Amino acid sequence: MSADDPYEYRAAVRYLEVDQQGVVFNMWYLAYFDEAMTGYLEDAGLPYAALQAGGHDVQLVHTELDWRGALGWGDPIRIRVRPDGIGRTSFTLAFEVRGGSDDVLVTGRTVYVCIRLDGGGKTAIPDALRAALAG
Amino acid sequence: MSADDPYEYRAAVRYLEVDQQGVVFNMWYLAYFDEAMTGYLEDAGLPYAALQAGGHDVQLVHTELDWRGALGWGDPIRIRVRPDGIGRTSFTLAFEVRGGSDDVLVTGRTVYVCIRLDGGGKTAIPDALRAALAG
Amino acid sequence: MSADDPYEYRAAVRYLEVDQQGVVFNMWYLAYFDEAMTGYLEDAGLPYAALQAGGHDVQLVHTELDWRGALGWGDPIRIRVRPDGIGRTSFTLAFEVRGGSDDVLVTGRTVYVCIRLDGGGKTAIPDALRAALAG
Amino acid sequence: MSADDPYEYRAAVRYLEVDQQGVVFNMWYLAYFDEAMTGYLEDAGLPYAALQAGGHDVQLVHTELDWRGALGWGDPIRIRVRPDGIGRTSFTLAFEVRGGSDDVLVTGRTVYVCIRLDGGGKTAIPDALRAALAG
Repeated sequence: MSADDPYEYRAAVRYLEVDQQGVVFNMWYLAYFDEAMTGYLEDAGLPYAALQAGGHDVQLVHTELDWRGALGWGDPIRIRVRPDGIGRTSFTLAFEVRGGSDDVLVTGRTVYVCIRLDGGGKTAIPDALRAALAG
Repeated sequence: MSADDPYEYRAAVRYLEVDQQGVVFNMWYLAYFDEAMTGYLEDAGLPYAALQAGGHDVQLVHTELDWRGALGWGDPIRIRVRPDGIGRTSFTLAFEVRGGSDDVLVTGRTVYVCIRLDGGGKTAIPDALRAALAG
Repeated sequence: MSADDPYEYRAAVRYLEVDQQGVVFNMWYLAYFDEAMTGYLEDAGLPYAALQAGGHDVQLVHTELDWRGALGWGDPIRIRVRPDGIGRTSFTLAFEVRGGSDDVLVTGRTVYVCIRLDGGGKTAIPDALRAALAG
Repeated sequence: MSADDPYEYRAAVRYLEVDQQGVVFNMWYLAYFDEAMTGYLEDAGLPYAALQAGGHDVQLVHTELDWRGALGWGDPIRIRVRPDGIGRTSFTLAFEVRGGSDDVLVTGRTVYVCIRLDGGGKTAIPDALRAALAG
């Protein structure tokens, strides 16, 4: 990954994700964001399995989405991901969804809190995750 | 539960389950059957939590579905469930899906195998489950 | 509906909605909100079919969710809905999700824009919808 | 497409598709099959849009699935598709699901009936579809 070649999550809209209005039903964007998040971390050097092997996991505490356009059946899904703030125990990722053109159709922002897999609750972001988010 | 008042799983079609053809996308019937299975067992005296507390779980090994009609958005979903064969380690449930009328729209048959939650694999159907399936 | 007996959307968590962490995967809350929205309007006197018969539909332009807790398999889902702002062409609904207790586990806010079914785009909120939102 | 290089649908298991048992919940295989079906037809020279442009669509009338194994989060999904019978108005596709190894984990068979998009019901399989299925 480099500034010239940023990570982009790629998939295609499934038939079942499209509703009677002929567009992707809103909830599926959260499915895409989840895959884009793990893809982004893996591309940045931290496969999710490595995060969990270190005893950590993440949980969503906040998400927001804004729609300016829509995807239809078979459209390519292309999602850019970038860190948008890192605290002691939480971090934010921003998402931009494009289809077949350069127009941004949907944007999202999700705040994740880092937790311990042993049930110990909220914990400081581990170094490996901090490094991945630093890009 | 009695012969005169058999268990019927009830729900309503969600908007997101309906596709561009205006009917419930095929995979959601398996979601309904899963809920109907656990509802049936609970109605027959075996809540799923009790099955698992006894160290058991079930896994699908075979499912078949036949469509004669379709459900649309907001339609009631009504599913009758009946045992259709019990072996040493597996059992079969038959499903009949109705909507707002008495017409059977979809039928299904699923073969479940009983497994041990400790990872020990296939195991004999426990007495509590056998009793629930005997109706 | 009255102030003493506000509408509450009710369902139960399906097995398939629960992920490996043992809690409802985030996107399903948007599925619940969608059903709660149409249930709320119907309870307020405007079945969605009547809205569409009048040539109108709604589209999401913004959603935000905050998680304080989680739902697990079989948990009851109880969602209170209330209008949180009405403009000329858009309106906002606020959602509060509870499970088996009185604790609010998840909150949401969604901005909907009113559109014409004939493809004419954004349009003024029709009187029947405005009345339903006035409670 | 040739005998030496048959079409294979490829995707990866999404986190949300995995349940508390740690494996893909059964219904998602029907989501995969649907994408594999359209991918197969496109690879055979008939994009679904072309089928519909000709006034045709397909509907499922029967599906069966057999599970011998399971997919987990992040596993590759690889599905081979082959015609398994063609009648006057219906045809059958057979599916074989593999993950990271050559083991077949799930098999499926779906019978589709050809319908007219104008609501005219069941109709003879059009030549373009018959040709695509002939491989």
